[in-house]
Amino acid sequence: MYELGVVYRNITRADRTAADGLGALGSATVHEAMGRVGLMKPYMRPIYPGAQVSGTAVTVLLHPGDNWMMHVVAEQIQPGDIVVAAITADCTDGYFGDLLATSFQARGARALIIDAGVRDVKELQKMNFPVWSKAISSKGCIKSTIGSVNIPVVCAGMIVHPGDVIVADDDSVVCVPQALAAKTLAAAQAREANEGEKRAKLASGLLGLDMYKMREPLAAAGLKYID
Amino acid sequence: MYELGVVYRNITRADRTAADGLGALGSATVHEAMGRVGLMKPYMRPIYPGAQVSGTAVTVLLHPGDNWMMHVVAEQIQPGDIVVAAITADCTDGYFGDLLATSFQARGARALIIDAGVRDVKELQKMNFPVWSKAISSKGCIKSTIGSVNIPVVCAGMIVHPGDVIVADDDSVVCVPQALAAKTLAAAQAREANEGEKRAKLASGLLGLDMYKMREPLAAAGLKYID
Amino acid sequence: MYELGVVYRNITRADRTAADGLGALGSATVHEAMGRVGLMKPYMRPIYPGAQVSGTAVTVLLHPGDNWMMHVVAEQIQPGDIVVAAITADCTDGYFGDLLATSFQARGARALIIDAGVRDVKELQKMNFPVWSKAISSKGCIKSTIGSVNIPVVCAGMIVHPGDVIVADDDSVVCVPQALAAKTLAAAQAREANEGEKRAKLASGLLGLDMYKMREPLAAAGLKYID
Amino acid sequence: MYELGVVYRNITRADRTAADGLGALGSATVHEAMGRVGLMKPYMRPIYPGAQVSGTAVTVLLHPGDNWMMHVVAEQIQPGDIVVAAITADCTDGYFGDLLATSFQARGARALIIDAGVRDVKELQKMNFPVWSKAISSKGCIKSTIGSVNIPVVCAGMIVHPGDVIVADDDSVVCVPQALAAKTLAAAQAREANEGEKRAKLASGLLGLDMYKMREPLAAAGLKYID
Amino acid sequence: MYELGVVYRNITRADRTAADGLGALGSATVHEAMGRVGLMKPYMRPIYPGAQVSGTAVTVLLHPGDNWMMHVVAEQIQPGDIVVAAITADCTDGYFGDLLATSFQARGARALIIDAGVRDVKELQKMNFPVWSKAISSKGCIKSTIGSVNIPVVCAGMIVHPGDVIVADDDSVVCVPQALAAKTLAAAQAREANEGEKRAKLASGLLGLDMYKMREPLAAAGLKYID
Amino acid sequence: MYELGVVYRNITRADRTAADGLGALGSATVHEAMGRVGLMKPYMRPIYPGAQVSGTAVTVLLHPGDNWMMHVVAEQIQPGDIVVAAITADCTDGYFGDLLATSFQARGARALIIDAGVRDVKELQKMNFPVWSKAISSKGCIKSTIGSVNIPVVCAGMIVHPGDVIVADDDSVVCVPQALAAKTLAAAQAREANEGEKRAKLASGLLGLDMYKMREPLAAAGLKYID
Repeated sequence: MYELGVVYRNITRADRTAADGLGALGSATVHEAMGRVGLMKPYMRPIYPGAQVSGTAVTVLLHPGDNWMMHVVAEQIQPGDIVVAAITADCTDGYFGDLLATSFQARGARALIIDAGVRDVKELQKMNFPVWSKAISSKGCIKSTIGSVNIPVVCAGMIVHPGDVIVADDDSVVCVPQALAAKTLAAAQAREANEGEKRAKLASGLLGLDMYKMREPLAAAGLKYID
Repeated sequence: MYELGVVYRNITRADRTAADGLGALGSATVHEAMGRVGLMKPYMRPIYPGAQVSGTAVTVLLHPGDNWMMHVVAEQIQPGDIVVAAITADCTDGYFGDLLATSFQARGARALIIDAGVRDVKELQKMNFPVWSKAISSKGCIKSTIGSVNIPVVCAGMIVHPGDVIVADDDSVVCVPQALAAKTLAAAQAREANEGEKRAKLASGLLGLDMYKMREPLAAAGLKYID
Repeated sequence: MYELGVVYRNITRADRTAADGLGALGSATVHEAMGRVGLMKPYMRPIYPGAQVSGTAVTVLLHPGDNWMMHVVAEQIQPGDIVVAAITADCTDGYFGDLLATSFQARGARALIIDAGVRDVKELQKMNFPVWSKAISSKGCIKSTIGSVNIPVVCAGMIVHPGDVIVADDDSVVCVPQALAAKTLAAAQAREANEGEKRAKLASGLLGLDMYKMREPLAAAGLKYID
Repeated sequence: MYELGVVYRNITRADRTAADGLGALGSATVHEAMGRVGLMKPYMRPIYPGAQVSGTAVTVLLHPGDNWMMHVVAEQIQPGDIVVAAITADCTDGYFGDLLATSFQARGARALIIDAGVRDVKELQKMNFPVWSKAISSKGCIKSTIGSVNIPVVCAGMIVHPGDVIVADDDSVVCVPQALAAKTLAAAQAREANEGEKRAKLASGLLGLDMYKMREPLAAAGLKYID
Repeated sequence: MYELGVVYRNITRADRTAADGLGALGSATVHEAMGRVGLMKPYMRPIYPGAQVSGTAVTVLLHPGDNWMMHVVAEQIQPGDIVVAAITADCTDGYFGDLLATSFQARGARALIIDAGVRDVKELQKMNFPVWSKAISSKGCIKSTIGSVNIPVVCAGMIVHPGDVIVADDDSVVCVPQALAAKTLAAAQAREANEGEKRAKLASGLLGLDMYKMREPLAAAGLKYID
Repeated sequence: MYELGVVYRNITRADRTAADGLGALGSATVHEAMGRVGLMKPYMRPIYPGAQVSGTAVTVLLHPGDNWMMHVVAEQIQPGDIVVAAITADCTDGYFGDLLATSFQARGARALIIDAGVRDVKELQKMNFPVWSKAISSKGCIKSTIGSVNIPVVCAGMIVHPGDVIVADDDSVVCVPQALAAKTLAAAQAREANEGEKRAKLASGLLGLDMYKMREPLAAAGLKYID
C-alpha cells in the first residue's frame, strides 16, 4: 500500500490561518464540524495533560523498532508543522526522546503524533514539546530499514495526507484534510458561537429536553414515563 | 434482559446520611466492608486525579454511539445523585461533554460513571465535575434510538440498581446496594477506626507477620526459611 | 518453574554505589547501556508522575488474589531495596495499600514494582512511596496460599533475580543483573556524558542526519528524494 | 452487590417448552426478538465449533482462582439446565475440566457458560459437553473461599437470574429473562418464518434496497449517487 | 477525513487477470512481493479455516452499530468483487449475516472484509461465503445514518481504495493498490518459483545459514559460539 | 537482562524418557503435578487444534520484526527438541513459515513455541508441524540484528532454560525445569492414575461434594443453604 524509500520535499500545506485557527477550537468541536469524522483512535493519549495544539502535518512511515526515518523527517519540518508518525506493524517501542525533540523543536515543530511509544516524557514536558502516543516506553530503536516521508499514512486508524491540519488536545487527535480546512474552521467557529448561550441556559436549569425540543420525538420513538 | 423505552420517575434512594457518609471512607474500605464485592472493573478511571465522591445512583441505558438518553436522564437527577450510564454493547465514543455537565451540575448531580467515553475533560476539571469512564474521546454521538432510565443496569461488570450508593475515588468505583447502605457504613467506619493504630504500629517497625499473628499459620501452610 | 513455599533470607545484593548511581541516569539510558534489553513491558506505569528511583530487588511470588506473602517479604526488606512482586497468573487485584506501604517504608523500601494492582494511590503519593503497577484497583485479597520470597521471578515479562538493580521512572522499569551493575553504570555514564553536547548541536539547528553522518547510508539503502 | 455464602435450592425455572424451543432459533434471532438486548460480550467464545444449545440457568459466583463453588453448584443442577459462572474479578484460570464436566453431565447439565477459563477442551469436545468461555487455560484453582449459588450474577456484561433461559451458539450467548421466555419464543418464531421468503428473493438477485424500500429514506437522509 | 453520504458508481477495478492470479499466491507471498507492506492488522481473522480468495475491492464506510450502508453497497457489487467495510469508530456489532451474504453472493461477491463483527457464521460456512472480521457477535444493527460507498477507507489499519486487489487467507488480509497489481503478481510469482527448490534443500537437511550464506554476516555482527 | 550475541552449543537436555513421557499426560496434569506453576500465559494458542507434544527446549531470543536468529537456532536443534522463541519487545510479526518449518522438521524439531506471530498456517498443518503462538500474521521480518541461542528466556511470562521440558496441547503450554522432569513425571502419573476411578464415580452421579468430603469444610466456611 505504501510507497517505500521516498521523501517528498515539496508538499503543499493547508492555509496557515486556518491551521492555526482550528487549534483554539479543540478536537471535539472540529470533529463535529466535519460531520463526526477525522478522529484517531482513543488509545492515542497525550504524554502530559493540558497541551492543545494545531499545525500542518508532515508524515513519516517507519518500521517496527526502527526510528531511522525520524532523522529524515526532521529535515522536512517547517515552522508550524506537526509530525505524524505511522508504523508498518503494531509496536510500542520508544521511537522518540529528548534529543529528537530538541531537533524537532529547533526546526519549528509544534508536536509529534505517533502510533507507537516515546520516552523521556519528563524532559519533554519540561521542554513544552507535547506528544500524543500509543505508549510510553524506554525501549530503544535500531536504524536499519528505510521508510518514507510525506506520503499518505494511516496513524491510529486515520488517513493523514501531508499538509493536512492536525488538532490535538486532552480529548483526542483529529485530522482535517487540507482542502476542507477553511470550511471546517468556519463551521467550527459557528458551532462554538452557539455554545455560550446554550451553556448559560443549561446552567440556569433549562433542560436539553426542552432546549432541543426532544420531548415530542422521544414520545414518537415510544418512550414511556412510569410513576 | 433490559426493559427498553421506559423512564422510572419515582425511585427510592438510599438513606442520604449513609450515602454521604460512605464517600469519606473511600472505595477500598467500603468494598472490604461489604465482603470484597461491589467493584466495577479497573478499566474505569477518573478523568482527573483527586476527586472522591459518593451519591445515589440514577441509571441510564444507552445504545452504542447514541447519547439521546443523556438528556432524558438529566431531568431525573436530584441533588446528591450520581448518574450511572451503561451501554448495550462496547463503545468508546464521547457521550458527555461540558454542555451536558453544565446541565447535570445544575440539577445537583455530583458525578458521572460511564462505561464508555467522555470529552471536554479539561473543562470538566475546571467545572469540578468528576467523571469515571472507560475512555476519553471526542467522538460525537447521534440521537436516534431510545434506551431507558432508572432500570437496573450493568456498568463495567457490576449490577447497579437505581437508588444504590456509588462511591468513587482514585482507586475504583464501588456500588453499595440501597438495602445495605447503613450496615455497610457502620462496618466501614469500624474498619477505618482500627487503621490508625495499625498504621502507627507498622510505622514503628512492627511487622504485619507479628501484628496479625501470621507466623504460625504460614509455618502450618509449609513455608520454609532458608539461610 | 517456580520453587514454592520458600523464603531465602541471605541474598547477595548488587553493589550499593552502583545501585544508587543508576537511578539518576534513568531507565532509557540504563537500558541502552545494557544493549537495549532489561525492560519490563510498557503496561507497567507509575501510580503518580515524577518519581525516579533505583534500588536492589527483593522478590516475591504471589498467587492471584492472594497477598499473604506481602507480609512475608516485608521482613526481608533492607534499606535501599525495591520490592518486585510477580503473580502466578494474570491478576489486577489490589495487593498493596497504605498500611503495607507504611510497613515497607519503615523497613527502608524505596518502591514497589508489581505485575498486578494496587490501591490507596492518593495516600501512597502523600507518603511519597512510588509504585509501578499494571492496574489500580480497590479489589481486596485473601491470605490463603503461600508463594516464595527471593527466588528469581518474571515480572511484566522480565526475569528479576534477588539482588538485581531496579531503575524506574516515568518512562519504564528496567532490571540490571547484579553482575552487570558496575559495568552498566560506567557505560550509562559515558553515554550520558555525550548527550549535553549533542543536545546543544541539535538545538542550534544541526540535523541528526549530519551529526550522525546518516546521509550516505540512507542513500546506500535506497532512499530517494523527490521534489 | 452480591450476597455471599448462600445457596438457593428452590428456584423457579423458565417454562421448559419455551426454554427448549429457543435453542433451535439461535442467539441472533432470539436477541433481535427481544429488541436487540440480552447478549453477553463477544469475547465469550465456544471451545469448539458447531454446538447450539438452550437451557435454564443455574448460576454460580466464584472468586478469582478458586473453583470450590463448582462442586456446590453441581448438586443444584437439574436436567435441562445450563450453568452460568461469574467471577468477582477478572480471571482466566481453568475453573473446569473433564472431571467436573462428567459430574455436570451426569446431573443433566447441557452446557457451561463461564466468564473465565476452562481446560481439557479436547476431552470436553469428545464428551460433547459444550462450554462458552473467556479463555482456555490449564491453570488450576484452589478451594478456599465460598461464593454463592443461584443468586443474580453478571456474566460477561449481562445480568443472569437463576431460571432465565440461555441460548448459545457459534455466534454469541444470549440470556432471556424467565418472564419473557414464552413471548420471546413467539416473536423469534415469527421472525424466523419470514426469513425463508426473504432469502429466496435475495438469492434471486432482488436487492435489500428494494425489498425493504430503502431508496426513499436513504435519499431523504441525503445520500448522493455520483457517476 | 471521510467524504460522507456519497456512492461512487463508476470505479475502475484492477485488471481481472492480476486480481485473480494473486489469490493463488496467498497473503504472505503477495505482501513480501510488495516490499513487506499492505497488511491489515492481525486481529482480522477468518470466521472459518481454509478459505483463500482474491478480488477487487468495493468499499463501504459505516457508523458504529449501523449497517444501513450494507444494502447500498450490495448494489455496487460486480462479479469478482470483495466488499471491504470500515467503521467510523471501534465496534464489534454483527453487521452482516446470512441474508446479506445471500444478497452479496447473488451479486457475485467473493468475500467480505469487515473491521467489526459478523453473525450467522455457521450458515456462512455452509454457503461457502468467507468473511474476515474483528469479531463474531449476534448484536444487531440499526439503519439510521448514512455513510459512503467506494471512497478510500481505512480497514484494520490499512488504506483501501475502491478497485484495489484484496488477497485473504488463513494468515492475513493484504491490499494491493490497483496500479501495482500486475507488477506485484509478477514479483510474487517469481518469489514463489524459487520456493520449491529451497524447500527441497531445507528438507534434505541443508541449513538456511548455508543456503543463504549467513555465517559471515552473523560473525561480522558479532555472533559468538560458545562450547 | 539477556546476554546478547551468543550461541551456546553444548546444553544439557532433560532426560529423554521423562521428556517424552510428560507429553502423554497433557499440560493440565503436568502443571498440577508441579504445584500449579510453570504455565505460559493463555494468549498462547495452537495454530490448529488437536496437537499434543512434549520435548526438550532449545531457546532463541530475537528482536521485534527480525527473524535472523531463527536460522541460527535451526542448527542447534536435535531430534526431540522444541524451539522456544522469545522477543525483546511485544511483536506480532510472522517470524516463521513453511520454509523454516521444513528446516526445523528436517533437524528433528517437534514444535515451535513463539511469543509472536507465524504464517503459512495451512501448510504447517499439512506438514503436521504444530506451533503455539501469540498471533497469526503474514508480516515478514528483516535479518539485521543478532540475539542469542540457548540462554534462559522469558516466553509468554514463563522462564525457560535450555534443556527444560515443554509440554503443549489444546489447553496450554507448560515448562518443566530439567531438574524436576523425572519427579514431575512420577507425580503426574500418580495423579493420572486416580482420575479413572474418580471419573467413573462422578459419571454414576456421585457428587464431588461427597467424593471429596467438602460438605463439612463448606459449612465451616459459613455456606448457608436456603430453601
